[in-house]
Amino acid sequence: MSQYRAPLTEMLFVMNDVAGLADVSSLPGFEDASPDTVAAILEEAGKFASGVLDPLNVVGDREGARLRDDGGVATPPGFKDAYRQFCELGWNGLAKDPEYGGQGMPQLVAAAIDEMWNSANMAFELCPMLTGGAIEAIEMNGSDELKQRYLPKMVSGEWTGTMNLTEPQAGSDLAAVRTKAVPQPDGSYKIYGNKIFITYGDHDYTDNIVHLVLARTPDAPPGVKGISLFVVPKFVVGADGRPGAANDVRCVSLEHKLGIHASPTAVLAFGDGGGAVGHLVGRENNGLEYMFVMMNQARFGVGMQGVGVGERAYQRAAAYARERVQGRVAGEKGTSGIIGHPDVRRMLMSMRACTEASRALGYVTAAALDHAHRHPDEAVRAKKRAFAELMIPIVKGWSTETAQRTASLGVQVHGGMGYIEETGAAQYYRDARIAPIYEGTNGIQALDLANRKLRGDSGAAMQALEGEIAQFLAAETDATFVGPLRRGLDVLAEARARMLAHDPVSANAVATPFLRLAASVVSGWLLAVQAREAAARLANGSGDPAMLKARIAVARFYLSDILPQSLALASVVAAGKGELMSEAVLPLG
Amino acid sequence: MSQYRAPLTEMLFVMNDVAGLADVSSLPGFEDASPDTVAAILEEAGKFASGVLDPLNVVGDREGARLRDDGGVATPPGFKDAYRQFCELGWNGLAKDPEYGGQGMPQLVAAAIDEMWNSANMAFELCPMLTGGAIEAIEMNGSDELKQRYLPKMVSGEWTGTMNLTEPQAGSDLAAVRTKAVPQPDGSYKIYGNKIFITYGDHDYTDNIVHLVLARTPDAPPGVKGISLFVVPKFVVGADGRPGAANDVRCVSLEHKLGIHASPTAVLAFGDGGGAVGHLVGRENNGLEYMFVMMNQARFGVGMQGVGVGERAYQRAAAYARERVQGRVAGEKGTSGIIGHPDVRRMLMSMRACTEASRALGYVTAAALDHAHRHPDEAVRAKKRAFAELMIPIVKGWSTETAQRTASLGVQVHGGMGYIEETGAAQYYRDARIAPIYEGTNGIQALDLANRKLRGDSGAAMQALEGEIAQFLAAETDATFVGPLRRGLDVLAEARARMLAHDPVSANAVATPFLRLAASVVSGWLLAVQAREAAARLANGSGDPAMLKARIAVARFYLSDILPQSLALASVVAAGKGELMSEAVLPLG
Repeated sequence: MSQYRAPLTEMLFVMNDVAGLADVSSLPGFEDASPDTVAAILEEAGKFASGVLDPLNVVGDREGARLRDDGGVATPPGFKDAYRQFCELGWNGLAKDPEYGGQGMPQLVAAAIDEMWNSANMAFELCPMLTGGAIEAIEMNGSDELKQRYLPKMVSGEWTGTMNLTEPQAGSDLAAVRTKAVPQPDGSYKIYGNKIFITYGDHDYTDNIVHLVLARTPDAPPGVKGISLFVVPKFVVGADGRPGAANDVRCVSLEHKLGIHASPTAVLAFGDGGGAVGHLVGRENNGLEYMFVMMNQARFGVGMQGVGVGERAYQRAAAYARERVQGRVAGEKGTSGIIGHPDVRRMLMSMRACTEASRALGYVTAAALDHAHRHPDEAVRAKKRAFAELMIPIVKGWSTETAQRTASLGVQVHGGMGYIEETGAAQYYRDARIAPIYEGTNGIQALDLANRKLRGDSGAAMQALEGEIAQFLAAETDATFVGPLRRGLDVLAEARARMLAHDPVSANAVATPFLRLAASVVSGWLLAVQAREAAARLANGSGDPAMLKARIAVARFYLSDILPQSLALASVVAAGKGELMSEAVLPLG
Repeated sequence: MSQYRAPLTEMLFVMNDVAGLADVSSLPGFEDASPDTVAAILEEAGKFASGVLDPLNVVGDREGARLRDDGGVATPPGFKDAYRQFCELGWNGLAKDPEYGGQGMPQLVAAAIDEMWNSANMAFELCPMLTGGAIEAIEMNGSDELKQRYLPKMVSGEWTGTMNLTEPQAGSDLAAVRTKAVPQPDGSYKIYGNKIFITYGDHDYTDNIVHLVLARTPDAPPGVKGISLFVVPKFVVGADGRPGAANDVRCVSLEHKLGIHASPTAVLAFGDGGGAVGHLVGRENNGLEYMFVMMNQARFGVGMQGVGVGERAYQRAAAYARERVQGRVAGEKGTSGIIGHPDVRRMLMSMRACTEASRALGYVTAAALDHAHRHPDEAVRAKKRAFAELMIPIVKGWSTETAQRTASLGVQVHGGMGYIEETGAAQYYRDARIAPIYEGTNGIQALDLANRKLRGDSGAAMQALEGEIAQFLAAETDATFVGPLRRGLDVLAEARARMLAHDPVSANAVATPFLRLAASVVSGWLLAVQAREAAARLANGSGDPAMLKARIAVARFYLSDILPQSLALASVVAAGKGELMSEAVLPLG
């Protein structure tokens, strides 16, 4: 059995040399996040991930979360205690506001550490991830009273948070939300309705759960403009700030899922017994806007799940390929591990290249979020915000799609053993499969990129990004990078122009190929940056030479072996809808 | 819940118009396989698949095969009875030799019907598939006595067959087989050793199981040249031809697998109690050669699993996409099924195009096998044999790889519901994952294509295939097909030349990309043939216009949207090993 080891030197290299940790540390409020401090924090996180979370991953998968006879939810053995330790060590509040007890670390640091939690135990990580989204929604839009009552407990992890969007008839389409919220004389609301797919909708980690619930008030306009956001605690919080009477919310059932078994996915019934007490967040009918704030955070988080599970699948496959002896390796005497076989090496390199590409995408986006929040210059903030918003559907869509492929290759490297559950490779394949689906399917990410992000600003943010790539190319001399990347940039610029020229249906019809194409070019650029910085370090003798050489090799492999397939999508993007909408091709009925 | 419906008109169209059923029917011995008879057989098979096998698929997944306390294996409820019906209706002997009670139908017909079994219930189909391989090994190489004793019972399905190759240290590398076979004075052998991953290695369908076992005699040379093949029945067959005393073979455990739960995957211990009675097949030390005969058959069969599971995943996803209403569809009033959304249509079209491509590959290969066995002209037989042997790794490698992607898209079309096991889409995703692994991993298929099939005849068979594509292009006038296919043919010819020029390590390093590239071009050709024939039928008014138009649309989609990505692998194939073997890139230790 391979144990997870956080790739600390690789992570820190990308944080420092690609994502610009020093610049992030110099932002107001991040003075404590010096590169040395961050390295120490990562090392501690790595220990917790390897020592506590990783060993529980298999148990979580086998036992799963279960609905108890009394209606509560039992999490798998060891999870509750791990959560307690997680909170005691302060991990829950790592990047949260010090005003509510957080440690105020940058998103960049949180992203790297979230990657570790996800590598070690994706089902566990969902709980703090969702709590983080709920914190953000209350923090940005809630009243002072809501903030004071809920945030300190949620930042410490004493209470967890959930996002209640989906209903049976309202998944990707939130306009169809039917849950009702009826105003009460005391200013609160009574909530009635059923929500499905609620991650950690019930569990036994904590003595309260804070549900963020989308619902409609009686006079609300139809569609997305009539949705409001409510805080609905599992136990009503008294004047003393402590959980009191049980609220009228009940976990009706848990889903039987393909993976992430340790994460309870609940069907919640609100208001069956007279109405659940809820408190409005912000103003009525603005719920969707608020929800999108936490959604963006969650989408980024799901992208980091892709990075984490991809890294873990790679580690396990590489360890197996080193141990497993089978057949002679060309040019070697006798037998050696299958890692010597070229075809196995190709699989491992693909896994590694895609994981490193999505890591770079994720960290650079996290750093941009930090600048967007903290930079003293509003112009810089706006520029970084536009970049981050452009990148979030790419991070979510591409990192999760490649992670699924990486997890599948991980199974393949194991051969027949990969298909046996005890080996562990299959769990990543099952767990990873959710990431392209939740927090907005990857199809929704592609539409977000094509419409709100690209057409929404007439391509300005994408052009700015292309400009950065062009700037890199102007200064880079290594032909192995310049050639493929220049071609990639040209193809991307052409595809962007095509997308802007397309009619809306055509833009939607090729949104997914466009996301793949754009993500691959941006990934190629970031890996080329990684290679340039690695070469510079090799030249001046700073850093582990083997680690640095491997980074250059990964970048080369990505640009030569992976990028070309995505660039081939240019003709698909250019063609637009073609015959896709024709009933003759695919009947609607 | 969507029920499987055999796509009879589509299947028959491909059999008749692409694979040349009429030509197959005119081969000696296939007089009964007239197109009309075949259509009637397919219709009956479709009923059995939909009515009996498909409803058991979910049960099989949920209950799985289990090791009973008494050591026997219990298959899931309903499977034993389904197997009995399957045999009573004669399906087991469909394409088997009439001399042993079979119906002597062509491989082409068997391929189409196997596709149905696999669509309906892949775990069930494995049993007749393995029996078929064992029949072939005995039929081609066994003594008359072995044939008379075993084949009639195996053709009827009264006894099933297994293939015992793998041992813990001998998977892809059969040179490492250690199981021993010690000659006895009566001409039999005693077998000692452990075999793993034995599909249907034990079960309760029948009162005997015929194991085909690879083992070494005491004086055998090392490596693959010292492997012999033995028949080892579960119950020793007496002079009366009936199963007698239990042989010394024991099912030690069943694997806990990612999918195909209804198929018992056994660890078998031979000879723990003094030695299992075995009978040599053919001559000593020729076992690997014999095994490759049945292996080829099994590899083709696994390719058809890819077609079958892909078709089923498509049907379920399309049915869901028609029912599920979510969001407004551009250009439509109100709401309609998500099948109206361009991004969902792209997913469905991809699923369909890849499934139809692999169906065409499979059927054409099956027809070639029929010609290779039966054509009166030895030159034609040789040509068809070379084509079929070239195609088998492509059918296995490509159809299973695309099926896995298709099954994954099937999950994605379902959104969050796809991740819930009860929906059924996830089962295909899990079941399909084995196909790229067993009967030779897809990496092994790629090496087989690159080495034995391509370099083995200096590219002659591939060039002959390219010649057929060129011939098609010379006569075709529709530019939407000619353009992409001509480019594909040029790229393939160049890649083939590169493969032949590569050093062996380079050829192995890019064998997988080469297989993808070659498979995609050949698929594109066959779909273009399909489109040409469909257009001809539309022009002369024979056949269902909607079905025919859809075939043309699928071919166009494949050539415009799917083929280009595979062609982009040309540069990867051309580059060869590059830095892939460097320790700096990927350390061995």
